Amino acid sequence: MDFKTDFKPLTVDPDKIYDYSFSIIAEEMGEHDFSEDEWKVVRRIIHASADFELGRSVIITPGAIEAGIKSILAGRHVIADVQMIESGSGKKRFQKHGGDLHCYIADEDVSIEAKKQNTTRAIISMQKAAKLHEGGIYAIGNAPTALLELIRLIKEGLAKPDLIIGMPVGFVSAAESKEELLKLEGIPYITNVGRKGGSTVTVAALNAVSLLADEQAKK
Amino acid sequence: MDFKTDFKPLTVDPDKIYDYSFSIIAEEMGEHDFSEDEWKVVRRIIHASADFELGRSVIITPGAIEAGIKSILAGRHVIADVQMIESGSGKKRFQKHGGDLHCYIADEDVSIEAKKQNTTRAIISMQKAAKLHEGGIYAIGNAPTALLELIRLIKEGLAKPDLIIGMPVGFVSAAESKEELLKLEGIPYITNVGRKGGSTVTVAALNAVSLLADEQAKK
Repeated sequence: MDFKTDFKPLTVDPDKIYDYSFSIIAEEMGEHDFSEDEWKVVRRIIHASADFELGRSVIITPGAIEAGIKSILAGRHVIADVQMIESGSGKKRFQKHGGDLHCYIADEDVSIEAKKQNTTRAIISMQKAAKLHEGGIYAIGNAPTALLELIRLIKEGLAKPDLIIGMPVGFVSAAESKEELLKLEGIPYITNVGRKGGSTVTVAALNAVSLLADEQAKK
Repeated sequence: MDFKTDFKPLTVDPDKIYDYSFSIIAEEMGEHDFSEDEWKVVRRIIHASADFELGRSVIITPGAIEAGIKSILAGRHVIADVQMIESGSGKKRFQKHGGDLHCYIADEDVSIEAKKQNTTRAIISMQKAAKLHEGGIYAIGNAPTALLELIRLIKEGLAKPDLIIGMPVGFVSAAESKEELLKLEGIPYITNVGRKGGSTVTVAALNAVSLLADEQAKK
C-alpha cells in the first residue's frame, strides 16, 4: 500500500475524517434506540473506542444532553476527575461560553487532605469541586471512588450537578460505581453498563455535548 | 449496597487496587503466549480498557520491552502524539532517569507549518520530534497519520526510534497504520491489530515499560 497517496486526501481535513468515520459507524451500528442527539454522543464514544459493545451499553437519562448544553451555555463549570480528561477536552470549549474546565486531583491541598483522611485524592477532589462550584458538569472517566463520592455528596445535599458523565473503567468498583449512578434519581447522567469506559470515551461524550452547545449558541 | 464500607478498604491504596485488578485479569485471561515482561505490559492495557479482546490483539516484537527500558534508563526522550498521553503518563517518570516526555502537536511552529503544507499537525509534530531527538520512544495513541509519518521517516533514514508504541484508535487509517508498522523491520514496537487502541492504552503500555525501567534501575 502506498499510504502517502492513499490516506492523505482523507486525513488532512479533520472534519472530513470525522464525517467518514461517522458514516462507517452508522452503517456498522445498524438499528438502535438512541434519539438524534443521543446518537451524536454515542457515535463519538464509539469513534473514540472503536467499540460497538461499549457504544450499545451507553445509558443517557431523558433530558441529560439538553441539561449539559444548558449548563455549558450558562457558563457553569466542568469538573474532570483526571488530567487526561482536562487535556483531552480542553478549556477553550467552555471558556468561550463563560465557564471553565477544572481538575483538582493534582492540587497540593487535595493531596494533603487525602493523606490526612487516609482516602483517595479522587474523593477529596470531588469534595473540593462541590464546595467551589454550583451545578456544572462532572466528567468522571477514571476513578470509581470519584463517582461514588459524587453520588454520596448528592445524596447528602452537598452537590447538585447539572449533568454527570460517569464512565470510569476498571476491574475494581468501576461497574459497581455505575450501578450506583443508575439508582440515582433527579440528576441527569450519561453512563454505561459494565467495566469499560475511560478518559477517552468520557472526553468523547463531553465533547459531543459541548459541540451541541456550540450549535445551539449559533441559533 | 453500602458502597462506603464495601469499596473503601480496596480503593484507598492504589497499589492494592492494581494487585487486585491484576489478579482478576490474570484469572479471566486464562492461557496466553506472552512472556513475563510482555504480560506486565498487556495486563496494564487490559486494566486500562477492560477489554480482553484488545489485550489479546497486542503484538510485541522480541526485545521491544528491553529496548524501551534501555532507552528510558539512558535518558533518551519520549515523544507522545497527543497531550492526553503527555498528561496521562507524566514527565516525572522519565525526568528521574534524565530524559523527558514531549508532545509537539500544540506547538505554534507545528501549526503554522501544517497549514503551510496543507497537512496534519500530527505529521509535522513527528518531523519536529525526529529532528530534535535521537532515538527515544514514540508513543502514538491517537493519530494514524503520526504513526504513518514516523514509519516514513524511519524508511527515509530520518528517524530511528528505540521503541515505537503504536496504538492509534479509529475507523479511518488506524488499523491500516498498524498494518504498516507490522511490516516494519529493524525497529522494536508494541502495537495491536485492528481499530481499537487510544491514548489510555498507549499510556498503559508506556507506564508498564517505565515501571520495568524503574525496577531495573534499582537492581
